Amino acid sequence: MKKKLGQQSIAFVHQPVVTSTACIVGPMEGKGVLASYFDHIMQDTLYGQETWEKAESSMLEWAVKTAVSKEGSTMEDIDYILAGDLLNQLMSTHFAARELNRPFLGLYGACSTLAESLLLGGVLLDGEFGSKVAIAVSSHHDAAERQYRFPTELGVQRPLIAQWTVTGAGSAVISSAGNGPKITAATVGKVNDLGIKDPNAMGPAMAPAAVDTLWQHIQDTKRQPAYYDMIYTGDLGSVGKELVLDLFKDKGLDISTNYEDCGCMIYKETQDTHAGASGCASSAIVFCGYIYQQMLQKKLKKVLLIGTGSLHSTTSYQQKESIPCIAHAVALEL
Amino acid sequence: MKKKLGQQSIAFVHQPVVTSTACIVGPMEGKGVLASYFDHIMQDTLYGQETWEKAESSMLEWAVKTAVSKEGSTMEDIDYILAGDLLNQLMSTHFAARELNRPFLGLYGACSTLAESLLLGGVLLDGEFGSKVAIAVSSHHDAAERQYRFPTELGVQRPLIAQWTVTGAGSAVISSAGNGPKITAATVGKVNDLGIKDPNAMGPAMAPAAVDTLWQHIQDTKRQPAYYDMIYTGDLGSVGKELVLDLFKDKGLDISTNYEDCGCMIYKETQDTHAGASGCASSAIVFCGYIYQQMLQKKLKKVLLIGTGSLHSTTSYQQKESIPCIAHAVALEL
Repeated sequence: MKKKLGQQSIAFVHQPVVTSTACIVGPMEGKGVLASYFDHIMQDTLYGQETWEKAESSMLEWAVKTAVSKEGSTMEDIDYILAGDLLNQLMSTHFAARELNRPFLGLYGACSTLAESLLLGGVLLDGEFGSKVAIAVSSHHDAAERQYRFPTELGVQRPLIAQWTVTGAGSAVISSAGNGPKITAATVGKVNDLGIKDPNAMGPAMAPAAVDTLWQHIQDTKRQPAYYDMIYTGDLGSVGKELVLDLFKDKGLDISTNYEDCGCMIYKETQDTHAGASGCASSAIVFCGYIYQQMLQKKLKKVLLIGTGSLHSTTSYQQKESIPCIAHAVALEL
Repeated sequence: MKKKLGQQSIAFVHQPVVTSTACIVGPMEGKGVLASYFDHIMQDTLYGQETWEKAESSMLEWAVKTAVSKEGSTMEDIDYILAGDLLNQLMSTHFAARELNRPFLGLYGACSTLAESLLLGGVLLDGEFGSKVAIAVSSHHDAAERQYRFPTELGVQRPLIAQWTVTGAGSAVISSAGNGPKITAATVGKVNDLGIKDPNAMGPAMAPAAVDTLWQHIQDTKRQPAYYDMIYTGDLGSVGKELVLDLFKDKGLDISTNYEDCGCMIYKETQDTHAGASGCASSAIVFCGYIYQQMLQKKLKKVLLIGTGSLHSTTSYQQKESIPCIAHAVALEL
């Protein structure tokens, strides 16, 4: 177990490289702050399909094919695909995986799935089980809304604490060799549940999981937060982000100078999404779009990406359960 | 990529060991053929909980704790838990993971999840990322029935091709050293879809995926089917099993002497389950109960377990999609 670091972390010895990324977003994300970083902005949310779910599947398929072709590979070069989404039984992932036709492993970590797939993709390559892995996640505002909340067409008013599920998909190719940010370390999260029951308050529900994983990452790796140029959480939104800052202040650490939440980076204030972005694609489009390009341009050299997942279901909510949450951290360095 | 074997397979160099298993089943499984192999038979399907979903979660938690304690370890010794189930957003797994409080990675492969977790657990240990992994899966007849089909209380008549979702949970501890069957090889499946749209016909839908993965396993590892004392598929039931035998006959291979389906081993003919058992727990209780004990007693020395998963959802069915399926194979040897 020479690659285990402390209680919950991994030190990658061969340090797999993220050699390519691609992302596709919906029209609303395309009008947001990071528009120039996305590979493709869809004209509508159906993307030529009959349903939102099939549109999401097509987006995920497009993202994988594009990430693979951008680095000059073909699908045949991909040893494994690791992917997931928010839909029941990973509907969009499975129909995309059918078209992609490569060895496939399905993951579910809600909105932490991008970090989980980077971590397990890194494990497969660092362990020398292959030379190229494609990872991908997706979410779709309209499909998620009708699955988790109300019929989308109903237009139910959302509370100000609520976040807006991102319509988008992101994919990355991880290789055992090549140019790009290397995966150097990771921390596997525990399920954390402080008793929040309101599924509109996912940011505050997930914040303690993010804090727990980052704190454990610091203990395990002996890296202080300042080691990283930037630390990003996946989709805590403005309320969850403030909570993370406060909880770290309680621990005597000020991380305000190099911490941001992907969910606070996507939409403009005028887009009125309330507390920011959420969904698997929140961290995916920020990582595969903005962060990855910043790293290639050496504007960021050391990044810690903390995927945050709210693991509730409509059934658990109806059965009056609180929201279990998780966070996984992946360190990327040039 | 020294551990990649052929197109889709893995050769484990350090060969992680399955050092312990545990399983718990519902009353109906406890009246079946394999009753004497199960660690605990529940008196009812609620297991002291208010809902079937929470009962399933308690079963999964019990299975992990029991597998860990049976080999003399504590939860603190477990580096990672890999687990999944059939419920939307893995409800039973996540509430169990909250109680188990160890680093957790959620997987979704429908009824192939046991094989997927054995495979990825093996990868984590073979890659030296830890020394002990607990894997677990569960399914619950009543919870699955109302999620996938009709309100359970309605008692809708099931067609003869349908299988009965197993109420049960199985867990295994995989260790980097110790006594027990070793994980020597694995084959990661591709998503396979021959166009079957009837969610009652999951056995026939999954059979081609099982055949595809076994065929690839033979090509990649150069092991003929006769290499194994027994080859087990997860939950194809009687109809799917016949289809596997037929499809292999078409390839000029007769595997009838050393092939069985876990879904055909659990219930007695008189229990009237129609085409046999299905669900994540089908392969889990047969592997963690019967197969594992047969291997410890050296009655079986080489086993290939092929987990089979039907990756549809109610939404994909309502949108008139066919059923994508997958199968992962794991070789266990003394």
